[in-house]
Amino acid sequence: MSTVKVITNILEANDRIARQNAQLFGTAGVYVVNLMSSPGAGKTSLLERTVDALHGKLRMGVIEGDIQSSVDAERIGRHGVKAVQINTGGACHLDGNLIRDAVEDFALSELDLLVVENVGNLVCPAEFKLGEDIKAMILSVTEGDDKPLKYPLMFQESSALVINKIDLLPYVNCSVERIEERALAINPALRIFRVSCTTGEGLATWTAWLADQVAGKRPRARA
Amino acid sequence: MSTVKVITNILEANDRIARQNAQLFGTAGVYVVNLMSSPGAGKTSLLERTVDALHGKLRMGVIEGDIQSSVDAERIGRHGVKAVQINTGGACHLDGNLIRDAVEDFALSELDLLVVENVGNLVCPAEFKLGEDIKAMILSVTEGDDKPLKYPLMFQESSALVINKIDLLPYVNCSVERIEERALAINPALRIFRVSCTTGEGLATWTAWLADQVAGKRPRARA
Repeated sequence: MSTVKVITNILEANDRIARQNAQLFGTAGVYVVNLMSSPGAGKTSLLERTVDALHGKLRMGVIEGDIQSSVDAERIGRHGVKAVQINTGGACHLDGNLIRDAVEDFALSELDLLVVENVGNLVCPAEFKLGEDIKAMILSVTEGDDKPLKYPLMFQESSALVINKIDLLPYVNCSVERIEERALAINPALRIFRVSCTTGEGLATWTAWLADQVAGKRPRARA
Repeated sequence: MSTVKVITNILEANDRIARQNAQLFGTAGVYVVNLMSSPGAGKTSLLERTVDALHGKLRMGVIEGDIQSSVDAERIGRHGVKAVQINTGGACHLDGNLIRDAVEDFALSELDLLVVENVGNLVCPAEFKLGEDIKAMILSVTEGDDKPLKYPLMFQESSALVINKIDLLPYVNCSVERIEERALAINPALRIFRVSCTTGEGLATWTAWLADQVAGKRPRARA
């Protein structure tokens, strides 16, 4: 029982910091995406593709979350946007505090879109709010179509589901229809995109939708 | 600082229970494997293949760990061995306590090999001992060859690394040699297996090695 209480308190404290972050982002007029997935589902690849598509149209920044290493921030940096690396040093998720520290490295009011790439993990990142406008998750078809049954919270909390690696569908035992059906049973409002970061298929629909979300926040924030 | 202290205390308490579990397993003469990976890397598929290969030679039992659902225990049950499902109800890893409760459902002294399939997560399961003889991890080639750099603890703690889905190598940008080189830099004693649970390639080497480990424990435990 006491364990449950401790976890509740940690989450409550985090929610408070996340609300402060959200206020900061609102004032600056920057749209924030919390991008989550299993290790290797393609978060950084999707981000590279998204940066390449939107960089000229939107002022972007990226926060990279990893237990260790700065390979992802270096990858993103090569695409011409500023990327700040957070190393959690063991923790399996980002939290409001880590984001509050990391955003100090950005001039937030000069950004339209800030994407936070969370630690590769389908579990805990779904529980810790960062102050984001939306959570988006990636599921790659190589992970199998049973994942909504096993990690429902992630699907419930996300506004967008990007189904990645659809170029590998001929070689794996996975039904995209079953993923979609199971994900929508948990979260009927989930917006779903089928993409391949390798071939580029489906990415234009994703980036157009994302740009629309950013445009929807800006006028309100700057009014 | 206080956060670090709390985590240390939780891990110390868990280590104590894990030592009691290990004693229980030693007395019963059952060899216990803690199988870990990202979601969808192929833990249950490897287990199904392993059960099919060793079921006639060894008396096997399986504990399935998931946040939610019992699909994995049902999959394993169809292969003719007893499988107990643990639902963590949110927690991203198994711990000594959960295992202590689950093993009450087995007649341990009638088992040679007990495999525990951990929650799909490359992070926290590496920190929580269960009382196992060895930790084994799976990395699928679709996850990319940078994973040892990002999740070093898992590679450090594991005795065996099963590189799965090698049938997909022609279609993904991943070097098995680079995975092996990076994993061995972290843990030079790591035993590495290249397999495909789809085609069956490499599985005989893995199951033969595992059977050898089990045989190595039995005489001592029963002497």
